[in-house]
Amino acid sequence: MEKSGSKNSGFPSSAGIVEAAKRIAGYIHRTPVFASESIDRIAGCKLVFKCENFQKAGAFKMRGALNAILSLTEEERSRGVATHSSGNHAQAVALAAKMLGIPAFVVMPENSSPVKANAAKGYGAQLRFCKPTLQAREEELQKVVERTGAVFIPPYDDYRIIAGQATAAMELIEDFPGLDIIMAPVGGGGLLSGTALSVHYFGKNIRTIAGEPEGAADACESIRKGEIVPSVNPVTIADGLLTSLGKKNFRIIQKFVSGIWLASDREILDAMILVWERMKIVIEPSAAVPLAALLKNKEKVAGRKVGVILSGGNYDIGRLFGKRHPLENTG
Amino acid sequence: MEKSGSKNSGFPSSAGIVEAAKRIAGYIHRTPVFASESIDRIAGCKLVFKCENFQKAGAFKMRGALNAILSLTEEERSRGVATHSSGNHAQAVALAAKMLGIPAFVVMPENSSPVKANAAKGYGAQLRFCKPTLQAREEELQKVVERTGAVFIPPYDDYRIIAGQATAAMELIEDFPGLDIIMAPVGGGGLLSGTALSVHYFGKNIRTIAGEPEGAADACESIRKGEIVPSVNPVTIADGLLTSLGKKNFRIIQKFVSGIWLASDREILDAMILVWERMKIVIEPSAAVPLAALLKNKEKVAGRKVGVILSGGNYDIGRLFGKRHPLENTG
Repeated sequence: MEKSGSKNSGFPSSAGIVEAAKRIAGYIHRTPVFASESIDRIAGCKLVFKCENFQKAGAFKMRGALNAILSLTEEERSRGVATHSSGNHAQAVALAAKMLGIPAFVVMPENSSPVKANAAKGYGAQLRFCKPTLQAREEELQKVVERTGAVFIPPYDDYRIIAGQATAAMELIEDFPGLDIIMAPVGGGGLLSGTALSVHYFGKNIRTIAGEPEGAADACESIRKGEIVPSVNPVTIADGLLTSLGKKNFRIIQKFVSGIWLASDREILDAMILVWERMKIVIEPSAAVPLAALLKNKEKVAGRKVGVILSGGNYDIGRLFGKRHPLENTG
Repeated sequence: MEKSGSKNSGFPSSAGIVEAAKRIAGYIHRTPVFASESIDRIAGCKLVFKCENFQKAGAFKMRGALNAILSLTEEERSRGVATHSSGNHAQAVALAAKMLGIPAFVVMPENSSPVKANAAKGYGAQLRFCKPTLQAREEELQKVVERTGAVFIPPYDDYRIIAGQATAAMELIEDFPGLDIIMAPVGGGGLLSGTALSVHYFGKNIRTIAGEPEGAADACESIRKGEIVPSVNPVTIADGLLTSLGKKNFRIIQKFVSGIWLASDREILDAMILVWERMKIVIEPSAAVPLAALLKNKEKVAGRKVGVILSGGNYDIGRLFGKRHPLENTG
């Protein structure tokens, strides 16, 4: 039977994901896969980690942003691109635009981390700050788009974005064909929906499981209720996973994801420390959520082969050592 | 002309280093080499980093320890191995012994970091604590050796150790033949002397440069005076570089190292943060010393290709996030 799954659904097809992979190949890193015997012993299973923390701009977001921008017509592209984001998507759009020699306009909530704002600025993006509400972000973005003619690149609720993010799991399956489970974190659902599609198209008997923070468990709730439950006042150190699910993402997740496992902030931090300490790599809290969730569900993975997508590594290292960021003095 | 350099000197020969590489090949990682465009821009040269932070037990020390232990006779080996060290050498000897199924006895100063003591213990070593002086360490070690018959594995002043540490630079030169400079940190001089020998035997027009902390600048002083100047009350965050130079190491360094560049603790910390932040990898302060020293000597490396040996990644990550180590409660 053909694994179409996407027939008439509008979901990206397997060919669409392969196409995305080819489109972005010259611009991204094919990230390495790391393993740790000592973490395997703690987890009681065989783990491999897809290191998107080593991806350009420090996160998987580069894949979707590039696929979306490279899918534009020459004319559209020349007008530049715009987005609103306080995090890794902003950096990804900024760097992708820089690589392609087009302008990028980024709307950021005024309470964004200075290190992230500075990173987007460092990639040459033109920043606009706004009040930290979704409404303010969308209004400010609308103004930017009207003024500049730039094309909006959405963070996750978009099939070009989803197909781009799907290429991470596709690579992982190519490198490790015998996995039983692939785990990814869930926020807006761009990475998770892409991962689930790649698992469906390219995997053999692999299940997709999400890790989600207890303090932002809207995806878990949404699956339980069968409809999108918005993320209201989320509180978690996993600052990349605060947003509500996108509509397109939700439909894919509903259909192709086998489970969503939760983890507390304490567990997320412990998992992050474990990865830094044992694997000697820097990941951000959001990237530690799947491992944290796995470690409290050991009985469900005992003896299995599990692939974990380490989604990103953008952490404010300077602050950790008591250094204030230059931008913080400018108020 | 044959590049012997070691004739009648007793120094490890090129064949000796190749032999060491073969001896330890099945037991160590051939570590990857990382690069960072953004650090290149800051440094104004092309840098490649040999990632010994990913080595087994988290540091290059594993190479020398394994070469020394695998060079013992069966009979010697069966009696077990012993050493005194508060740091990475202890962990390396402990893990090497565990891999070979022989006992390891480690004498540690009582003020050693609990995380390092625990790591050696976790590898199955039998620990003995002593007063934090070299004399107390040597006396306690002597007792252990007399009691157990274990063979002493010195941390650096030993040709088997030097030949083992030399394999890191040998691999780097194999992977990147066109380097102009290779940098390594200097403490006791095991890594630096091995690096300099590999550069001499296997490199083409490469210079070996050391990075040393200003607060433990005894190697720099020793080269200036032409004799070993002991390290007295060193104060630096680079806690792997506190010891005085070994005699054998000094003779090799005198002959084959082109320069020793200093860096302050502030500069070492900044370089360490830079590597964590831009390369998303965890290195310890000692490993950041060469990059720190390079960044204050930019004019000397402008446009050059520089290989930097990142010596290790054993940092107390838990403490960084305010977690006390279980062992700390036992007093």
